[in-house]
Amino acid sequence: MSYPYDHRPIGIFDSGVGGLTVLQELLSGFPRETFIYLGDTARVPYGTKSPATVQRYTIQVAEFLLRQNVKGLVAACNTASALGLPALRAHCSIPVLGVIEPGCQAAVGLLRGEKNRVGVIGTHATIASDAYARSLALLVPECQVRSLSCPLFVPVVEEGWTSYPSSQLLIRESLQPFIDDPVDVLILGCTHYPILKPKIAQVLGSGTTMVDSAQEVALALNRMMGAGFILPASQRESIRFFVTDAAARFREVAARFLPQLEIKTVDVVDL
Amino acid sequence: MSYPYDHRPIGIFDSGVGGLTVLQELLSGFPRETFIYLGDTARVPYGTKSPATVQRYTIQVAEFLLRQNVKGLVAACNTASALGLPALRAHCSIPVLGVIEPGCQAAVGLLRGEKNRVGVIGTHATIASDAYARSLALLVPECQVRSLSCPLFVPVVEEGWTSYPSSQLLIRESLQPFIDDPVDVLILGCTHYPILKPKIAQVLGSGTTMVDSAQEVALALNRMMGAGFILPASQRESIRFFVTDAAARFREVAARFLPQLEIKTVDVVDL
Repeated sequence: MSYPYDHRPIGIFDSGVGGLTVLQELLSGFPRETFIYLGDTARVPYGTKSPATVQRYTIQVAEFLLRQNVKGLVAACNTASALGLPALRAHCSIPVLGVIEPGCQAAVGLLRGEKNRVGVIGTHATIASDAYARSLALLVPECQVRSLSCPLFVPVVEEGWTSYPSSQLLIRESLQPFIDDPVDVLILGCTHYPILKPKIAQVLGSGTTMVDSAQEVALALNRMMGAGFILPASQRESIRFFVTDAAARFREVAARFLPQLEIKTVDVVDL
Repeated sequence: MSYPYDHRPIGIFDSGVGGLTVLQELLSGFPRETFIYLGDTARVPYGTKSPATVQRYTIQVAEFLLRQNVKGLVAACNTASALGLPALRAHCSIPVLGVIEPGCQAAVGLLRGEKNRVGVIGTHATIASDAYARSLALLVPECQVRSLSCPLFVPVVEEGWTSYPSSQLLIRESLQPFIDDPVDVLILGCTHYPILKPKIAQVLGSGTTMVDSAQEVALALNRMMGAGFILPASQRESIRFFVTDAAARFREVAARFLPQLEIKTVDVVDL
């Protein structure tokens, strides 16, 4: 039996460049799919904003991508996933995927032994939403979750300051609670944080395994989209990038962030 | 001769909490004036956004304050002053004051000797606008101006991380060009930076004098508003605070930032 192939692109969005870590994973997981990426750079960061505002922005972003005729939507932003997903799913008739549930599934898969100690780091808004703790409790009720906001990690990554000694010290000071009292698995609950993975590993040591959601998102997307993903041997069309402001800065930060990702053009849109 | 007193409030705005350093100076400089402060917290930071976007936001903010019947407008945000002032003045029939010119006047007043070496630090957008260098060149054509963006200082202040060792090291690494090759006067070209003044002084030593625009803005406001400022012995009405998002966070950051400033209520408005 063969399925008709759905040639429409997949929409993926983030408040800024962070979601590119997820896009990169999806590009290698789905070599023939076409993607449209939208970074809401006029309104980044989402992580310090109120739940109502994050929800409003998330719906506006989704509406833009729906107008581009996407067949599925990936919220590659932890804050938008934590606060906007139910509203987004109610709003869209196409499949919608966030990063929280896949991240939690990956974390649970890594738990061994009796302690089940999971740490979650993210922005203020993500941590305040308690979305990770709730999602983990559904999967492993006896799971011990400790959450910590690390709001300075985002600007450090966006400014490309990852290899300065002050950033290494900032990471150590921020993660002190997980140095004093370690966790077995640490969820990087912000799409910017994977860029700091080697620095975080230096601070926490080998006793803590880190989870970033990107890989698990690719698996979840495959499950979610189902039959439409049986791929013909066609060439992928080029990926399209949109931002809501400051396209030059987006390209510059993305190049520092993910030098292997080729970004030809970035168009600015008004939502 | 006595003048009729204009009882309308003065509007003051910033992208977030930074402008509170200017408000505080105005409160002591004008003990009987009433102020309305607006922090555009839904869209902070302005410093990474494009000139067109900053201009659009600045006009929207001004329109809100004009509807509150203000008699004068202070752009207590360096990025808005650098990029939005001409458009703002064209848009408003009331006096409009920015922070760039007052800061430059203060810097020039401090120059002694033949070197005239002035440093300017600010956000990406402020530094890229070259507004300080142009304004200084009008006042002292032979002035040697060196500009440097320090974008991580804003999140450090907003998160209250000013006294961590990593922040002290970040300040040292950021200001290395002014350590290697000192300036006589350093303009703190961002309303957040005065909060870091003692830390910056530790790094640069006593050979560099720092200028923050707040005090000079009060003097400029007095000149600009003129006769309407001959004050009666009335009581000041309470200061009103508005934000475009996340009022609780604004109060929290403001309390860390300026504990002596009493903020009773903060109203959220949509622009």
